[in-house]
Amino acid sequence: MTDFAKTKDMFHLPEEMIYLDGNSLGPLPKATPARVARTLTDEWGEMVITGWNRAGWMAQPMDLGDRIGRLIGAEEGHVTVGDTLSVKVFQALAAALAMTDRKVILSDSGNFPSDLYMAEGLIAALGGGLELRVVDPEDVANALTDEVAVLMLTQVDYRTGRLHDMAGLTAQARTLGIITIWDLAHSAGAMDVDVAGCGADFAVGCTYKYLNGGPGAPAFIYVAPRHAETARPILAGWLGHAAPFAFEQGYRPGDGVARMRVGTPPVIQMAALEASMDIWDTIDMADIRAASMALCDRFIAGVEAACPDLTLASPRDAAARGSQVSFRHPQGYAAMQACIAHGVVGDFRAPDIMRFGFTPLFIDAGDVDAAVDVIARVMTDRLWDDPQFHAKAAVT
Amino acid sequence: MTDFAKTKDMFHLPEEMIYLDGNSLGPLPKATPARVARTLTDEWGEMVITGWNRAGWMAQPMDLGDRIGRLIGAEEGHVTVGDTLSVKVFQALAAALAMTDRKVILSDSGNFPSDLYMAEGLIAALGGGLELRVVDPEDVANALTDEVAVLMLTQVDYRTGRLHDMAGLTAQARTLGIITIWDLAHSAGAMDVDVAGCGADFAVGCTYKYLNGGPGAPAFIYVAPRHAETARPILAGWLGHAAPFAFEQGYRPGDGVARMRVGTPPVIQMAALEASMDIWDTIDMADIRAASMALCDRFIAGVEAACPDLTLASPRDAAARGSQVSFRHPQGYAAMQACIAHGVVGDFRAPDIMRFGFTPLFIDAGDVDAAVDVIARVMTDRLWDDPQFHAKAAVT
Repeated sequence: MTDFAKTKDMFHLPEEMIYLDGNSLGPLPKATPARVARTLTDEWGEMVITGWNRAGWMAQPMDLGDRIGRLIGAEEGHVTVGDTLSVKVFQALAAALAMTDRKVILSDSGNFPSDLYMAEGLIAALGGGLELRVVDPEDVANALTDEVAVLMLTQVDYRTGRLHDMAGLTAQARTLGIITIWDLAHSAGAMDVDVAGCGADFAVGCTYKYLNGGPGAPAFIYVAPRHAETARPILAGWLGHAAPFAFEQGYRPGDGVARMRVGTPPVIQMAALEASMDIWDTIDMADIRAASMALCDRFIAGVEAACPDLTLASPRDAAARGSQVSFRHPQGYAAMQACIAHGVVGDFRAPDIMRFGFTPLFIDAGDVDAAVDVIARVMTDRLWDDPQFHAKAAVT
Repeated sequence: MTDFAKTKDMFHLPEEMIYLDGNSLGPLPKATPARVARTLTDEWGEMVITGWNRAGWMAQPMDLGDRIGRLIGAEEGHVTVGDTLSVKVFQALAAALAMTDRKVILSDSGNFPSDLYMAEGLIAALGGGLELRVVDPEDVANALTDEVAVLMLTQVDYRTGRLHDMAGLTAQARTLGIITIWDLAHSAGAMDVDVAGCGADFAVGCTYKYLNGGPGAPAFIYVAPRHAETARPILAGWLGHAAPFAFEQGYRPGDGVARMRVGTPPVIQMAALEASMDIWDTIDMADIRAASMALCDRFIAGVEAACPDLTLASPRDAAARGSQVSFRHPQGYAAMQACIAHGVVGDFRAPDIMRFGFTPLFIDAGDVDAAVDVIARVMTDRLWDDPQFHAKAAVT
């Protein structure tokens, strides 16, 4: 059983702040500054160019890929790290479209907009009758037909926390010959995921949210073993080449998912990610999921008891929800600013959503209760109407 | 006049090493570890999510873009930073192809292979009769015809240091209606460049070589003002959207080059880059160019006098050369390993090139003379044949 009191002590949490925004940017692991300093001083500083081999920089994208792969149920050697999530979405989508003659990319309105934008950009370039079809989240299953080339979804809705049935939708897609791309931005590190067990074709995600890799931490991509040697990389970069340092004039894709590497990997960001993965290596994702569901349930009960004006926007059933809880309020933006000014940091998503993320690694039941107290005071006293609050907010 | 004794003192250079590989990975500025530590501890650690605004993370890609823009002669507000060079090549190439009905991408065999690979990957996806035509560097001018859509070149040949006539080729291309993409990987920070004066359409480059941004430092892209509001971003990411935080379902490109931003920027890498740009902000590129030409000339003269077995692979005329000097030798790989083992760090490029980069910021005439002495000893005594050398090399 994971000892969450111990993990909490591994993070630097600002004084007098209850940080419920780890689903946007995870907090700093205490070990990260020293780990990054080592890469700067002992590796870059002393080894300079030889750091690529001597410090293992060149191997990091695949090493980190495997460490993340364990958390999402990937087979070893089938995840790599680099670039940003949007770029990895683009790579997966282009590779998927190259595998089929069908023309429809199916997604939903609960997907993160950038994923939809990347599809738009790709379609505008490729032409050929490709179509992005965006349905409501609850209509996805019905929209799966043999006309669909690719099903591209984010498992957890970034606004409401609504959780898609990844196993069920993937199974249904596979029977119809539809290729699946799962965006695990709000899943990796938030809950147990089983990409291999589900039979997903591609999965992508970021490492700056629940995985605590830091601002601008790199993304990851999973390619199912059955596609590993055939997936066609549209971003055919030299580090995805079979022999990067042969400097051949023509492109030959590297082995498996390594072909999804593109340019020079972000060594300093990867050092920071290594420090957080040192924590994750010790974690059982089933423990995280159980603790996260309990924290979210406790938060919902507390807020609903104390704040009748807030309307739950997340599924009430923990099994249908990711690791966040959202409430709607017409004054949501101002109310969230007031919560933040009083030490409870969540965030706001248009038009009216107050979003709170729960990460058992560093949030415990005491934090939940304290957060509920602050939110109750903000809502009951409408603290955002307080001129003193505005004076204070103006200087922070 | 830049005081290079002063700038040399701003870098950490490993003891007993003459580092002539800043054209591959620049050395560590002494100020970088503290700058990065500040981002980790004071910004990420204390501000967490609010760092995006309070610490200015969101503005960094454009701020850094302008600082780099000054070094390459770009108009203010037309350079942005992010991703890797290969990704920026892809973006520029896709945007250029969307502006024309022509089908030929012209490049040369002196281009960095990854640039050619990215063109290959894009062509394979787009189809439509696009063709990558690769000629010898000296044949580029003659290959410019009204059949050519895009001229995509690296200004400085990564192997030989041969410098293209950027102004002349760009002018010739413009009269023929050809769009130009210049890769400045070995130019930015190495010499004075004038993208605006040349009339280049796009320029891209990296910041981990001469600009000393560190391993995995982000790339940059320049889009000429005349294309700023029409260039179509194939990588249509949310941070290139006109209103990223409106989370609209459809993509609307942002203002100017900001549309070439894609996903979340690499904040920690950008912090490191800021530290090196603090040095670059004080530098006159004309001084760098003059000092670099003098160092390279001195090196050529020294090596040719002492090592008759080495054949100059770089142009003898400094005006036709970037900031590196390459020599050919049949045993080039082993000879370079021996140089490195004896404290002179250059690198090897297949099949037979020993490559040495000169960066006046931290290399002076004394270093050149000392390097020549070591290389002379390695070559005269064929030190790579020495069993003691192999024993030593095996443990480093």
